[in-house]
Amino acid sequence: MSKIIFQLNKRFGLEEIKTSSDDRGYLSKFQFDNHQFFTPKEFFLVYGVPEGQIRGQHAHHNCHQILISASGSVNVDVDDGSQKEQFTLNRQDFALYLPPYTWASQSRFSKDAVLLVFCSEYYDPADYIKNYNEFKEITSLAN
Amino acid sequence: MSKIIFQLNKRFGLEEIKTSSDDRGYLSKFQFDNHQFFTPKEFFLVYGVPEGQIRGQHAHHNCHQILISASGSVNVDVDDGSQKEQFTLNRQDFALYLPPYTWASQSRFSKDAVLLVFCSEYYDPADYIKNYNEFKEITSLAN
Repeated sequence: MSKIIFQLNKRFGLEEIKTSSDDRGYLSKFQFDNHQFFTPKEFFLVYGVPEGQIRGQHAHHNCHQILISASGSVNVDVDDGSQKEQFTLNRQDFALYLPPYTWASQSRFSKDAVLLVFCSEYYDPADYIKNYNEFKEITSLAN
Repeated sequence: MSKIIFQLNKRFGLEEIKTSSDDRGYLSKFQFDNHQFFTPKEFFLVYGVPEGQIRGQHAHHNCHQILISASGSVNVDVDDGSQKEQFTLNRQDFALYLPPYTWASQSRFSKDAVLLVFCSEYYDPADYIKNYNEFKEITSLAN
């Protein structure tokens, strides 16, 4: 059985996914749980990203996300308004958790990159913060 | 917004995932919904499967699953007790739905294959049917 690997309202960060292996290969598994993690309402895969393209560049008011690289490599720059960090996602057994009010950009997608994204909320245009200055204002008021 | 792409209690089968693309690449997205699709309790990735290995070879009493190839190619043989079919999963924008009482085997994993599996139930050893004769008996009684 998997341990619960995330906790809601924690800071962004990389979490190891419990992985088992035998002569048939590797299996990385996690359980969704309403108490310690969100149950996803949406799931999407991002792939075929041309060299040099940058995705994301926004934050959310309500939506929690989990990012996993299923194939290849992608850099994720995150910023909670006071601290910035860069993560390289290049293994199937690590997940990056992004709470609301995390500004995130994805760049340096390798040709074979496939990025998985789990969302705690359905798509809602009003949930997006697309202006960085506005993001900084909101997060400075909260801190 | 995604259309709802699955319906509970339907037969196994391949479903197209709504996909959008622009100069930043491809995004294939689906929404989980309790009424027309299951909300997953578990999610796992299978990868690094050595050549010639076969996985699965069981059915479930209760668990619905969705299989997506995030990278590479894998063959999935499915059998509902009366009909058999083989699917090749090799694109990110198609998902294979497996209802309960579907005997499934995964084989011919390409070296770069990464198989995603969404499960409607938490892992429970009692939910597994691992003996094919038993599976045939159960499904023949149900049909």
